[in-house]
Amino acid sequence: MKKIVFDILNNDGGHFKALDAALKFKNENPNYQLTLVGPANIIKEYLKKNTNKFEIFDSNGLAHIENSPREILKNQSTMLDAFNFLNENEYDAILSSGDSGSLISLSSLKVKRLPNVARPAFMPMIPTINNKYILLLDAGANVETPSEYLNNWSLVATEYYKKIFNIQKPTVGLLNIGTEEYKGSNNIKEANHLLKDNTLINYQGFIEPKDAIEGKVDIVLAEGQIGNIFLKTLESSFIGFGRVLKQTIMSSCISKIGGLFLKPKLKKMKQRFDYRNVGGAYIVGLEKVVVKAHGSSDKIAFYNALNQIKNLLEKNNFIEDIKSNLGAINNE
Amino acid sequence: MKKIVFDILNNDGGHFKALDAALKFKNENPNYQLTLVGPANIIKEYLKKNTNKFEIFDSNGLAHIENSPREILKNQSTMLDAFNFLNENEYDAILSSGDSGSLISLSSLKVKRLPNVARPAFMPMIPTINNKYILLLDAGANVETPSEYLNNWSLVATEYYKKIFNIQKPTVGLLNIGTEEYKGSNNIKEANHLLKDNTLINYQGFIEPKDAIEGKVDIVLAEGQIGNIFLKTLESSFIGFGRVLKQTIMSSCISKIGGLFLKPKLKKMKQRFDYRNVGGAYIVGLEKVVVKAHGSSDKIAFYNALNQIKNLLEKNNFIEDIKSNLGAINNE
Repeated sequence: MKKIVFDILNNDGGHFKALDAALKFKNENPNYQLTLVGPANIIKEYLKKNTNKFEIFDSNGLAHIENSPREILKNQSTMLDAFNFLNENEYDAILSSGDSGSLISLSSLKVKRLPNVARPAFMPMIPTINNKYILLLDAGANVETPSEYLNNWSLVATEYYKKIFNIQKPTVGLLNIGTEEYKGSNNIKEANHLLKDNTLINYQGFIEPKDAIEGKVDIVLAEGQIGNIFLKTLESSFIGFGRVLKQTIMSSCISKIGGLFLKPKLKKMKQRFDYRNVGGAYIVGLEKVVVKAHGSSDKIAFYNALNQIKNLLEKNNFIEDIKSNLGAINNE
Repeated sequence: MKKIVFDILNNDGGHFKALDAALKFKNENPNYQLTLVGPANIIKEYLKKNTNKFEIFDSNGLAHIENSPREILKNQSTMLDAFNFLNENEYDAILSSGDSGSLISLSSLKVKRLPNVARPAFMPMIPTINNKYILLLDAGANVETPSEYLNNWSLVATEYYKKIFNIQKPTVGLLNIGTEEYKGSNNIKEANHLLKDNTLINYQGFIEPKDAIEGKVDIVLAEGQIGNIFLKTLESSFIGFGRVLKQTIMSSCISKIGGLFLKPKLKKMKQRFDYRNVGGAYIVGLEKVVVKAHGSSDKIAFYNALNQIKNLLEKNNFIEDIKSNLGAINNE
């Protein structure tokens, strides 16, 4: 039996959506043990007779960081309790939609790291304009990302992509301010050399944001700050573009008619680029499966994230294959 | 009489568009002296009897950098000749649509810097979703951008915004991976403190890509690499979404009809977000006006860039006002 612990609180207050998703998943996967971490009275009142399908760990408090990442250990929160529970009860995976910074800190502080991985990385899956998905890492877990980190993460991402998409040699690119070899920081140039020498990955060199958006590679490696700015700009552009398109459609009678004709197709387009349909971001570099759902996740998003975890847990050799590759590259 | 030198070559081969724009501008502004730097035979053959409206500096060779920014001084190029011409003939401004890296290098190496500005920054104007324009700097001139650079650049950008948009206290934000004070690199946190203490600007603190895209501030300060990734992601997202929207419209008969109704409005929307209608990027921190037009500029884009230069040259105190502010802040 596989075991998942689920922190149901987040800043957007969507805990009922989390509970709806948990129930749907549990009904379809009765062999999974699901522990819900959150206020027991609210959970029981909402789930009613379904309550007994779950374990409930009574907890409260929203995880947040104001001044320093280590604060997360000092304040009571459902996320802290969930991570402690993960450790103490030998669970396989954890899902949370709480604050990213807190989740990354707890992943660093509470979960055993894979050999030779100094820091975890944040790896969301992103829809591209050519109908595929790319993995982006690090998307913001780390302010400093030395070249060796990038090289080691590339192995985890490669293994993950293989398992999730059944593609044997996923391509890897390194996000930079230009594709010419002399461009970028010293650190990114060093990473470029390390990745070129790494025979366990299918490395394609530097890429620019355009190449990532067009899905020219499967895995986009990035220094943490660059990956974070790329991801947030992409998301905000899409939302902004949608808003302007809506204003454009509503701006006259004729364009409103045009909008009516296009409505079903535009809805599909919106769904396709909506990160919420893509599941959660995977935290790279840990011995357990840690997934972050988006703060504004709805029932479908949480449900997809649970299925993503299932997908990884049921590929038996996932963590083991990563370990053996990490060993090979670092003992060369 | 104001004097502009115009490097007409670029990678996209649009030199006839540059010539068309130069002619339109010169016809409307006969009091400007315009020197065209490029292959004289081609220019003369194209301009025919209009040739005598210009000075022509015969030159050839595309500016490009392969291994190191200083290469730009060793290879013959129209851009190098144009910068030398600017210096030797006491011209007021230079316009080029050639390679950005080359232009930045030549700006650094050939043009006198404003007092207390150690390095020039690249500052394009960007359309936002709330019908205004923001200035972004540094958008990629510098890999390293120490906090003092950001502080000094903010003064130039503020003065520029005032003159171009007639707004007395333009707001300034610092692009970061989060708005919380503890987030980001040490350098960006230092810059945040310096900017808070700077009484000559209207500083609003850290902003995220979303805030920039929504135009929540007038001037977006960024470390060079972050600004570059932000700009390129924004541009590529817009182009990508436009492509997907087109595919969506063409995907069925009904949606094609919808597209027909929407066509004029969509065209307007495209024009509004097309960087080419926004003119050129200003190079911040120099004693002369240096403007970079986009590599794929058409006649309108070049013409707008020439008018942008005119706008700055005719605001008499532009460079002087900047100098006095830079003096004030650095002698405090």
